[in-house]
Amino acid sequence: MKKIITLLLLAPLFGLSQASQSSNQDAAFIKKLSDEILTNGKAYDLLYELTKKVGGRIAGSPAMYKAEAWGEKILQQLGAPNVSKQACQVPRWVRGSGDFASITSIDGAKQTRALDVLALGNSLGDGKKVEATLLAVQNFEELEKRKDEVKGKIVYFNNSFDATIVKTFEAYGKAGIYRRSGPSQAAKYGAVGCIIRSLTSSTANDPHTGGMSYNDSFPKIPAQAVGPRDADYLWSLAKKSSTVKVSMATHGHFLPDTTGHNIIAEIKGSVFPDEIITVGGHLDSWDVNEGAHDDGAGVVHTIEVMRAMLAVGYQPKRTIRFVLFANEENGLRGGSAYAAAAKDKKEKHIFALESDEGGFTPRGFSFTASPEKVAAAKCWLPLLKPYGTDSMDDIGGGSDISPLNRQLQVPLCGFMPDPQRYFDLHHARSDVFENVNKRELLLGAVNIAGIIYLVDTYGF
Amino acid sequence: MKKIITLLLLAPLFGLSQASQSSNQDAAFIKKLSDEILTNGKAYDLLYELTKKVGGRIAGSPAMYKAEAWGEKILQQLGAPNVSKQACQVPRWVRGSGDFASITSIDGAKQTRALDVLALGNSLGDGKKVEATLLAVQNFEELEKRKDEVKGKIVYFNNSFDATIVKTFEAYGKAGIYRRSGPSQAAKYGAVGCIIRSLTSSTANDPHTGGMSYNDSFPKIPAQAVGPRDADYLWSLAKKSSTVKVSMATHGHFLPDTTGHNIIAEIKGSVFPDEIITVGGHLDSWDVNEGAHDDGAGVVHTIEVMRAMLAVGYQPKRTIRFVLFANEENGLRGGSAYAAAAKDKKEKHIFALESDEGGFTPRGFSFTASPEKVAAAKCWLPLLKPYGTDSMDDIGGGSDISPLNRQLQVPLCGFMPDPQRYFDLHHARSDVFENVNKRELLLGAVNIAGIIYLVDTYGF
Repeated sequence: MKKIITLLLLAPLFGLSQASQSSNQDAAFIKKLSDEILTNGKAYDLLYELTKKVGGRIAGSPAMYKAEAWGEKILQQLGAPNVSKQACQVPRWVRGSGDFASITSIDGAKQTRALDVLALGNSLGDGKKVEATLLAVQNFEELEKRKDEVKGKIVYFNNSFDATIVKTFEAYGKAGIYRRSGPSQAAKYGAVGCIIRSLTSSTANDPHTGGMSYNDSFPKIPAQAVGPRDADYLWSLAKKSSTVKVSMATHGHFLPDTTGHNIIAEIKGSVFPDEIITVGGHLDSWDVNEGAHDDGAGVVHTIEVMRAMLAVGYQPKRTIRFVLFANEENGLRGGSAYAAAAKDKKEKHIFALESDEGGFTPRGFSFTASPEKVAAAKCWLPLLKPYGTDSMDDIGGGSDISPLNRQLQVPLCGFMPDPQRYFDLHHARSDVFENVNKRELLLGAVNIAGIIYLVDTYGF
Repeated sequence: MKKIITLLLLAPLFGLSQASQSSNQDAAFIKKLSDEILTNGKAYDLLYELTKKVGGRIAGSPAMYKAEAWGEKILQQLGAPNVSKQACQVPRWVRGSGDFASITSIDGAKQTRALDVLALGNSLGDGKKVEATLLAVQNFEELEKRKDEVKGKIVYFNNSFDATIVKTFEAYGKAGIYRRSGPSQAAKYGAVGCIIRSLTSSTANDPHTGGMSYNDSFPKIPAQAVGPRDADYLWSLAKKSSTVKVSMATHGHFLPDTTGHNIIAEIKGSVFPDEIITVGGHLDSWDVNEGAHDDGAGVVHTIEVMRAMLAVGYQPKRTIRFVLFANEENGLRGGSAYAAAAKDKKEKHIFALESDEGGFTPRGFSFTASPEKVAAAKCWLPLLKPYGTDSMDDIGGGSDISPLNRQLQVPLCGFMPDPQRYFDLHHARSDVFENVNKRELLLGAVNIAGIIYLVDTYGF
């Protein structure tokens, strides 16, 4: 059925028999890319290097520079005809060491029960112990109702991560506001510290960090995420006790911004060299893990797509840029610099794809583009379905490429792997190489290579 | 598009507006099942019990009886209106202990290099060390060409597991003949032992066992699978050395058949009680692991579907049987007994579903049924797509339910989770609880519950 629809939709462009012939040629070429990647793919070994030899690489850190040097060297070694570095100023948040939270008393009786916590990214803390009574609330509505009780307390948000939402990024989208804004919402009413439930439905107790930002109108209080099992414990304790005291400390601070770089490999187009296709992932990660899925996977997908295209001797019609973005997690400076440069140089960007949802088994792509363009992309489904692409969704893209759309209206595409395991690991200590599966990772590269080939061949 | 097609195909049955209304009701009920499973699902905790408290449970072993008692108790505790045990004779193969293989000399120079091996299931061995020169061949064709060299040797098959095949069960299907028949093919020409490459493309060195059978016309030689990294080593060694000597021993033997049981819970149909729908998985596993994905996942899927239907107060129109089959791995005795009883009692089975491809994220279902029935099932795709079902394939089912089709022409349906990680674990020591993800497991139950509800509602 789908095949027929594809051919019918392509027919006005090429005539039916030509469309059929193109489709067969496309299928054969995508199979060639797939065989190359599944047989000789380097993505898994490269991810090992990035996670184990470079490790966690938060923006501005020495590891970020190591990651940049690694990316530049690898792209050159793999035969990229042109590798360049694009400078941008990146923030330099430092967690410091010694973050902790602990229950110190329950209904007046002294206790010592450590909680597994991580300070939220960008949060500030002078390392001094803050000890106060806990005020546990389910959400902002409850905080609002109980605002008169907040002063001098440590607020705990038992924000839910809705397990009934099958598309886990939607659950993350709903819960995310507690991480980003919870601390300042609590500080607004006089809280002296804030702890949120980690944004996950994982069975493990690992806490999940991630970016937050303070509202400058209110005190910048210590802010942490607590592991989900400890969160359950804290919530049940708060429900049955009249007074729970908690002690917490964080050590986050900013050093001056420093210069980071987008690492860019380019293959010039042979027919339409001025039409630029971007494919990328971000080099930076949080500091507490190896950034294996977030976004080591996107980085090695990007490199693997380039490697495979070169290995099979592909000569693109359009210019393809393979971009390792400098800083997504706590600043989006890499993507912003890339879009600003594109605007300055009046470049013609026709399509930008990002892989930043992990190295899991492929399911599809999501777009920020006109309905006509999304409908056209859906005609490619039968060509990509053999490799795992089942869906082309209307809303999506990627953080690093989003400035290209905001500033230059470039159509965006996000690689969508299966999302069920992502928030078990996302921003947690468990986002390590061992939790990446080689075949799943390589198949991601196969599908991305397939769609980039199609965009290059037919335009977008 | 799909929605329109569904409605158009349902239209002749119900009229368009009725079809639309039914579709909405179905969507709402499947969402109810999904919310129940994703919120209160017990599958993951039950799998923990089955894998950690019962453990590996090869047919005929004490653990098999423990698993039967566990299954019966759980089904009763979860409120199954009717739980019964169906007896069948099961084989009782015992691995024994002390299996090994080791390289003992290379080109005349003494060596000691242990290989990680597992005896193949059903293989025989008296535990005596067999030491002989290795003959390494890629496949049966090479063995045939070199048959005059085989006498007195240990044959190593470097059978490939084709990584370029995206549907991994197809790669398994192609490679499987070396495990099942390799040893007797080698013995036919006088081999004294046989080692095959494990049927996997995993990056780990774990060997993968699995069922083999001897051809009674030839000597029953010791037979092992070697881990994939050791397989690479053995193959490269054989290519560069003129004489490699290997020593091996296995200890497999059979005890007399014993009585095992299918454990069956039944909910009687309220409208068509004589029309039976079966959903099941197999209780037995290999002895070297916890049988977490194979087929603990199928067992707990089956139980979870029943639990969820009871929890939401579902009263089926047709009779639904939830079957934990006694013995699949090395005998298929459970499924055979179930079909034989159905035939004896002249039962009317309209549909049988099995989950035996692991507890990974759902992708679809595969059928052994008439093209008309498969086409009808495809109309349900839009109802199941929100939960991960993207495909309905023409060929598939499950081992345990296959006798129902062979003997009674019952349409079969196999649950198809994503297949990329299955053969990393299949029949290897690594098939343990820790390698099952809770959300992926629960979503399997959601999709199975959904299709069982649809079959019950509309027939098949």
